[in-house]
Amino acid sequence: MTRFIDVPMMTQLINTVGIDQTLIGVAATLKEDFSRWQEFDKCARVASHSDVGVIELMPVSDGTQYGFKYVNGHPSNPQKGMSTVMAFGALADVDTGYPVFLSELTLATALRTAATSAITAKALARKNARILAMIGAGAQSEFQALAFQHIVGIEEIRIYDIDQQAMEKFRTHMATSGMRIISASSAREAVRGADIVSTCTADKAWATILTRDMIEPGMHINAIGGDCPGKTELEKSIVLDAEVFVEYEPQTRVEGEIQQVSEEFAVTELWRIFTGEHVGRSCDSAITLFDSVGFALEDFSVLRFLFEQAKKHSVGADIELIPDLSDPKDLFHKLTPSSAQTNKQNIKVA
Amino acid sequence: MTRFIDVPMMTQLINTVGIDQTLIGVAATLKEDFSRWQEFDKCARVASHSDVGVIELMPVSDGTQYGFKYVNGHPSNPQKGMSTVMAFGALADVDTGYPVFLSELTLATALRTAATSAITAKALARKNARILAMIGAGAQSEFQALAFQHIVGIEEIRIYDIDQQAMEKFRTHMATSGMRIISASSAREAVRGADIVSTCTADKAWATILTRDMIEPGMHINAIGGDCPGKTELEKSIVLDAEVFVEYEPQTRVEGEIQQVSEEFAVTELWRIFTGEHVGRSCDSAITLFDSVGFALEDFSVLRFLFEQAKKHSVGADIELIPDLSDPKDLFHKLTPSSAQTNKQNIKVA
Repeated sequence: MTRFIDVPMMTQLINTVGIDQTLIGVAATLKEDFSRWQEFDKCARVASHSDVGVIELMPVSDGTQYGFKYVNGHPSNPQKGMSTVMAFGALADVDTGYPVFLSELTLATALRTAATSAITAKALARKNARILAMIGAGAQSEFQALAFQHIVGIEEIRIYDIDQQAMEKFRTHMATSGMRIISASSAREAVRGADIVSTCTADKAWATILTRDMIEPGMHINAIGGDCPGKTELEKSIVLDAEVFVEYEPQTRVEGEIQQVSEEFAVTELWRIFTGEHVGRSCDSAITLFDSVGFALEDFSVLRFLFEQAKKHSVGADIELIPDLSDPKDLFHKLTPSSAQTNKQNIKVA
Repeated sequence: MTRFIDVPMMTQLINTVGIDQTLIGVAATLKEDFSRWQEFDKCARVASHSDVGVIELMPVSDGTQYGFKYVNGHPSNPQKGMSTVMAFGALADVDTGYPVFLSELTLATALRTAATSAITAKALARKNARILAMIGAGAQSEFQALAFQHIVGIEEIRIYDIDQQAMEKFRTHMATSGMRIISASSAREAVRGADIVSTCTADKAWATILTRDMIEPGMHINAIGGDCPGKTELEKSIVLDAEVFVEYEPQTRVEGEIQQVSEEFAVTELWRIFTGEHVGRSCDSAITLFDSVGFALEDFSVLRFLFEQAKKHSVGADIELIPDLSDPKDLFHKLTPSSAQTNKQNIKVA
């Protein structure tokens, strides 16, 4: 049987484990997987573009498990009351091809994106970073905030969004977090004096959310909104002046902030930090930039963590996604009356 | 919500519609989709290979709907009591990226493979073909037999398999079909005098199931077992002497029987027959060969047909695979207590 997790089950799972422990657990799994980078069969995502958006399949394998994510990107979806990004995916055994885990991945993607930002900031920001400026209070913002709190040790967040309602929503959700939440009246005001700056805005091509003069020596910038061809958030001179870290260079060259600079501009892949091969920031006054676009390995890590937790806490349903055959040569048997069941009984809660 | 169909629900759906009407309906959808071949965004499958098998993602879109299939191929699975090929997949709206249908596709693949064979044989075999020789009585065989009966008009099947038990299983399942079922003692005996010869064997690389001297003028050969690099079923001279039809030439060149011949050897893509652009067999004495490897378009067609039938007959479950958000900017709301549900109530039968 295949363990299945839909959105209400994912809510239940995260609340059972606890959002803080979930983020910490995803972070630990990510560090583990980034540290064994060479074991993964990496390939670029397979995209199907239309006038209004994109649908992608993102596969990855470590030779033992295989994972993939289905994910869309449709900037005009919110006008239809739908999310810009929606996702689901699966984990399978490489030895048999059997899909062992099928899951919603919209919430899971928010978790892994936040945890990836946080482990990278923990490695790249100056020690004792306590103040985070966040530009953008959209669907990803609360996950980012909590990951930075529990993994980096952030105590104060300065939030800015052009949408006042989104800022209010963020404040409401963060009210019991224990962090000081300060609403800024501009991106510039939010950024001034911050240790870490995180940008997560959507839908404007070639936007300039941060300009060079806003960035102070020693800051770490976590840029996650510029994540597809023709979509960036930073002024080019920030990129040029920063020490830039990326997930997977071939993908980031076409999707990240470094679209703006030449192919010769040097960047460092994240895994080199987690294996200890690269030291991270060169000095306290350097500007570090994580040019994040999201990579299939991160989905693999979150799938792996959530599957373990779902089994441990008996959350989810066991479904017959693949025919359970007593004789592998007898698929037709599934259509005979003795094999038929009503659909009222066949989804068993774990 | 996303309509979900697992294996028991698929059994229920097929039995509700009827296996004959299901095959006829899938066949009609396939002909419709092959006839508008140019509307599809076709790309080769994305494969992840290991020592013991392969896991593939097969995407396709017509600009309105997007479909993909997850499918494995593990020849040693039957030794572990598992199927060689297992599949599931989804259908999404291109305009929003929303996955509207998530389904088991192991049974569905058997249906579409059989229906594709049958519509092609109907177009390429001599008129009044009534006798079918089938080599291989494995998991696909009964689906092939019924599709040839209901779509081509086959009245007699001569079956051969090296596995006597598999032949018995086939005879048992076909006992009430209304067709004459004759067990042959060799492939040669099965083929002699047949109008159509269908090969569907597995797991031997470069096998020779049919030799040139077994093939009579006017026969149509439906070769579906040679479907991946290094795996074929026919003696090379059969391919050279036949009028060869394929689904999608770039894919068949690396996966089909035509792996054995040079790149210059001319083949015809199926869609040209269904649009009326190509006449099919040149004369009654020609040997025609459908070198079938399976193509993403066929999965798209079967998904499309089954989704319509699932809605029409209210079969399946409506699942929250994607978060249903009142505010697209408020994903975090899903984790608050008011949004939490127990997993006992959240899969609603359609």
